[in-house]
Amino acid sequence: MRNNLCLVLGGGGFLGSHLVDALREAGFPIRIFCKSNSSPTFRGGDWQAVEIFTGDFVTGVGVTEALEGAAFVFHCIGTTVPANSVADPVYDVETNVVPTIRLLRSCVQQGVRRILFPSSGGVLYGPASEPVSEESPTLPACSYGITKLANEKYLHLFRTLHGLDYTVLRISNLYGERQTGKFNQGAVAIFLRNVREDRPIHLWGDGAIVRDFVYVRDVARAFLRAMEGPPAQIFNVGTGQGTALSELVRTIEQVTGKRARITQEAGRPFDLPYSVLDIQKVRRVLGWEPRTALPDGIRATWAWLNQTRNLKPET
Amino acid sequence: MRNNLCLVLGGGGFLGSHLVDALREAGFPIRIFCKSNSSPTFRGGDWQAVEIFTGDFVTGVGVTEALEGAAFVFHCIGTTVPANSVADPVYDVETNVVPTIRLLRSCVQQGVRRILFPSSGGVLYGPASEPVSEESPTLPACSYGITKLANEKYLHLFRTLHGLDYTVLRISNLYGERQTGKFNQGAVAIFLRNVREDRPIHLWGDGAIVRDFVYVRDVARAFLRAMEGPPAQIFNVGTGQGTALSELVRTIEQVTGKRARITQEAGRPFDLPYSVLDIQKVRRVLGWEPRTALPDGIRATWAWLNQTRNLKPET
Repeated sequence: MRNNLCLVLGGGGFLGSHLVDALREAGFPIRIFCKSNSSPTFRGGDWQAVEIFTGDFVTGVGVTEALEGAAFVFHCIGTTVPANSVADPVYDVETNVVPTIRLLRSCVQQGVRRILFPSSGGVLYGPASEPVSEESPTLPACSYGITKLANEKYLHLFRTLHGLDYTVLRISNLYGERQTGKFNQGAVAIFLRNVREDRPIHLWGDGAIVRDFVYVRDVARAFLRAMEGPPAQIFNVGTGQGTALSELVRTIEQVTGKRARITQEAGRPFDLPYSVLDIQKVRRVLGWEPRTALPDGIRATWAWLNQTRNLKPET
Repeated sequence: MRNNLCLVLGGGGFLGSHLVDALREAGFPIRIFCKSNSSPTFRGGDWQAVEIFTGDFVTGVGVTEALEGAAFVFHCIGTTVPANSVADPVYDVETNVVPTIRLLRSCVQQGVRRILFPSSGGVLYGPASEPVSEESPTLPACSYGITKLANEKYLHLFRTLHGLDYTVLRISNLYGERQTGKFNQGAVAIFLRNVREDRPIHLWGDGAIVRDFVYVRDVARAFLRAMEGPPAQIFNVGTGQGTALSELVRTIEQVTGKRARITQEAGRPFDLPYSVLDIQKVRRVLGWEPRTALPDGIRATWAWLNQTRNLKPET
């Protein structure tokens, strides 16, 4: 069983902690790697059997130790989000691409079986007016998308040169419990929080912006499928369905029973008007389907938000 | 006339010095930026009217000063070649991507009209069996290709965010006078040199590897066309014709009148079996054509190699 050891980098975070839940339910031995100051907020469920390694991914402190004996590595650490990445692309490269290359080198040395990488389905592709497949041209409108793309290419390079297997999941707009909406990231989390605290919702552009909101527990299941799927593959992971931001607001009003106050903001150059993923490949090859309808996922997120005592007010 | 000032970064180098020649013939005012220790070997022609700025691109020393008043910037500085980039991708990222982002920021601040970037047509695309167009999937088999691709994406990002115009030329296998064959880069230069010094030619794989050899003076003309072409465009620049390495060797034997000794080496994982560019777009949009047949270009390169007194023996 030890040779199935799963290392979740960033296992205390939003996506990472849901991966831990899904891996535990599937019976895998689990180790997480996180910053020593990671918030324990997200650690629901049984963490007794989870090994916790601490260190610093960017400088590499503790990474090699955490990799020892790991068969699968889930790389869920990132230092930027689309909006703040454009302000300092050098920081984005130095703290996301460079440490990832070092990680890949260590994975080869440690004999890791496969690395699984959450990439961006939302900011990697160029402008489109219908769902984009994995073969669509990549044309990121923010540094975050460029560094994700570079990391995808380095994964492929290490596969070519050193035989390290990988799977990339290009995730659309992820939402669900434990997303805090920090750094202005995650429309569902930010909108719910603002509604809860009776603050206005800022809509960039005219509310007609369309996104593909995918529920985090569905995405965690996709990672489990990807562990045994064909190697060296890239999969879009979303719902294939577009939701306008104005529609999202209405759904939030229905679920929460509260009235949203809207303020219109000027559009941002890095926001695509339309971003929806074509998910035929992941359906066909991994047999994965999104299961959670948007109102259901929002209901779960809303319930979590209202139960969470440790959640600090946004500053 | 001053508002046509052309800054050639790496203007003392192989491609850069040919750009200087072409720009001078076209009557542009020219400034070059190079390391203080750049070899003067390549400086044929009239350099009296060329401003020479020295500094260090990687650390950024002297770059801002060199950019002052420049309308067009030709970014011909690179610290790696495909073969050595795979040994240390971190170095590749830190010395090619990071300083390029800083350069773009400075270009915006200085009001540069357009930046022209020589990218790689030879190692950017995935495996193919016929000429690849600009829309073909990118799948670099070396870090050099990944950092070129990342720089292309940052050029586009700075255009989107800050309005900085750019043109990318994805050049196939460049050859011609002043290519030294250092760092194991440039088959024509290396083969000619080995023939001249009666050393064996190492052929990776079985000699059936096909490349698209394009003559440097033809490429310099393409850059001049690109200066006034439509902005934010990527163009393949090659000949559209494939030449097997075994065929290259025969042509070299015919041109030089010498017999080549061949040693077969095992194929390298980062060498594509076939790499030829589809050049329909650059023909159509910029009206550019390669003019120099391979034997003619090899003849010119051979003549230069035999006239060059300063060329140091390869170490």
